[in-house]
Amino acid sequence: MLFKKVVIAGIGLIGSSLARNLKNKNLADKVVAFDKNAEYLQQALNLGIVDEVYSSISEAVRGADLVVLATPVGSFGPLAKEMSPFLEKGTIVTDVGSVKKYALTEIEANIPENSEVVIVGGHPVAGTEKSGPQAGFEELFVGRWCILTPSSRSSDEAVKKLTEMWQFAGMKIDTMSAQHHDKVMAAVSHLPHLIAFSIVGTVADLEGYEQKEIIKYSASGFRDFTRIAGSDPTMWRDILLNNKTTILELIQRFIEDLVALERNIRWDEGDKLFELFSRTQKIRKEVIDAKQDQPEHEKRLCAELKKN
Amino acid sequence: MLFKKVVIAGIGLIGSSLARNLKNKNLADKVVAFDKNAEYLQQALNLGIVDEVYSSISEAVRGADLVVLATPVGSFGPLAKEMSPFLEKGTIVTDVGSVKKYALTEIEANIPENSEVVIVGGHPVAGTEKSGPQAGFEELFVGRWCILTPSSRSSDEAVKKLTEMWQFAGMKIDTMSAQHHDKVMAAVSHLPHLIAFSIVGTVADLEGYEQKEIIKYSASGFRDFTRIAGSDPTMWRDILLNNKTTILELIQRFIEDLVALERNIRWDEGDKLFELFSRTQKIRKEVIDAKQDQPEHEKRLCAELKKN
Repeated sequence: MLFKKVVIAGIGLIGSSLARNLKNKNLADKVVAFDKNAEYLQQALNLGIVDEVYSSISEAVRGADLVVLATPVGSFGPLAKEMSPFLEKGTIVTDVGSVKKYALTEIEANIPENSEVVIVGGHPVAGTEKSGPQAGFEELFVGRWCILTPSSRSSDEAVKKLTEMWQFAGMKIDTMSAQHHDKVMAAVSHLPHLIAFSIVGTVADLEGYEQKEIIKYSASGFRDFTRIAGSDPTMWRDILLNNKTTILELIQRFIEDLVALERNIRWDEGDKLFELFSRTQKIRKEVIDAKQDQPEHEKRLCAELKKN
Repeated sequence: MLFKKVVIAGIGLIGSSLARNLKNKNLADKVVAFDKNAEYLQQALNLGIVDEVYSSISEAVRGADLVVLATPVGSFGPLAKEMSPFLEKGTIVTDVGSVKKYALTEIEANIPENSEVVIVGGHPVAGTEKSGPQAGFEELFVGRWCILTPSSRSSDEAVKKLTEMWQFAGMKIDTMSAQHHDKVMAAVSHLPHLIAFSIVGTVADLEGYEQKEIIKYSASGFRDFTRIAGSDPTMWRDILLNNKTTILELIQRFIEDLVALERNIRWDEGDKLFELFSRTQKIRKEVIDAKQDQPEHEKRLCAELKKN
C-alpha cells in the first residue's frame, strides 16, 4: 500500500479522478474527501470513490500521510493555514494546481518549516472542460505528463512516492522548477485558455447577429473554442491572476502577431498568410506525432459508445 | 436517380466525402472527379468513390447535369471560365465554398447568363482539419447544416435537387443570402480559424522556450488550437482574403475585448474575469444543447475503435 490515509481536498474533476485511481488500484488504505460543496461530497460517496467525506479540512487531515490540494489555487493559502496545526510530522502535502510558484509560496508560507511537513508541488497536465466528481474518470491521466516541482521543503522519498502514485494512474513524470513550469504553462495552456474565453465573449456579444445562428453553425470552428471556454471560471480566474507577469507579456506578443496578420489580410499578402498557415499545419503534425492529439473527452465518448 | 453525371471539381476532404455519398447512396449514374493533383485522382479511383477522373475541367464537365466546385474558392473564377463553353443549358453549377459572395461573383461573372446554366451557391458546414480524398468519409455531413444561397441565376428546381442531395448525405438545409452567410461565417468560423492560426504561430515563435516542451505539454490547451490551425493553408488564405471587410472589423472587436481582459488581469479585477468565464461557460452549454458539440474526428475515431 503506497499510502495509509490520503486526503483529497476538492473532489472535482481532477480530485475525483485521482480518488478513482487510489481506490480502484488499491494505492491507499483510506481515501477521504474534503470539499466546501456538500453536493459534491454526497456524489463522491454515492460513486463509492472515497471512504469518508468532510466539510472541514482540519478534521479531514487527521492521521493523513498524504494531502492533495485539488481546489482552485486561490484557496491554497487559507486551506494550508487551517490544516497546518493538524498535520503530522512527515505528512506529504502536494497539489494539482496549474500555477506552481504562487501555489507553493502560499502553501509553504502557511505551514511552518518546523512542522516537518513535506511539501512537493505537482501538476498533472490532464483535464477536460467539465467540472465536478461525476465528470471525473479513472483514465483521465493515461498517457499524459505529470510535472513535479520539488523545493527545499521536499524530500526524495516524497517525490518518489508521488511519482509512483501518478505512474499508477498512467502518467509520465517530469520534474522541473516551479518558475520554469509557470513559464511553459503560460504559453501552452494559460494563453490559449485566455484567448478562447476572449473570443467566445467577442462572438457572443456581436450586435446585429442572431445568437441562435451563432450556436447553430458553431460546428464550423466556434464550437472548438467554446469547449475550452467552458472550463471552470473560479479555477481560471485564479490561474490567470497568479501567473500574471508572464501572461501579460504573452498577450502583448500575441496581439502584435495578430495585428501583423490583420495587416497581411488588409494588403492582400496571400503568400504571407500561406506561409504562416503551412507552418501551423506542420506544428499540428508534431502534436499528433507526439501522441498529444486525443482529448480525454473523445476517449470517454468512445468508451461510452463501446459499451453500447 | 437524382443526377445523371455529377462532376466533383476538387476531390479533397469535402469533394471525396460527397462522392462517397453519391456512389454509396446511388444518387447519380456517374460520378467523375476533376483535380490538378494526379495523386488525389489516383487515390479516388483506388477508393472506388468515382467512376472517372480528369485533369482537365473542360473535359470533365461534358454531358454533366451537376458540377460541384470543391476546390479552394480562389480557383472558382478560372475554373468557371475554362468550363463555361462546355456546359449544357440547364446544367447546375454549385459549390461548397466557405465564402459565398465572392464565390458566386466569380462563378457568375465567368459563365454568361445566356448559357442558361443554373447557378446555386452552397456551403455544407462540416469538415475536419484534414485534407485529401483519403481523409473524407461518408458520415462527414450527418447532422450538420448545409447553407444554400440562391440568387437570380438559380432555379427552384435546382435548389430542390441540391436540397435532396445534401439531405441524402444527412444534412439539414438552410437558405439565406450570400451576404448574410458571409457575415455569420465570419463570426463563427473565419475569426476563430484566424485566431487559431495566429496563436499557434505566436507560441511556436516564442524565444526562450524549447519547442519540444511546447509540443510535449500541448494537451493542456495548445493542442486544441493546433487542430484548427492544421486546416488547409490554401483554402484558408482564400477565405480570409475574400471575406476581408467583415473579418477586419471582427479582428478589431476581438482585439478591443482582449485588451480589456488584459487590463482586468493587470488590475486584479477577478470578479470581471469570473463574470466573463461564467458567461462563456453558459455559451458552451448552449452549443452542447444544440448538439453541435461532437466533432467529426471523434465520430471517426469512435467508428474505428468500434471496428476493432
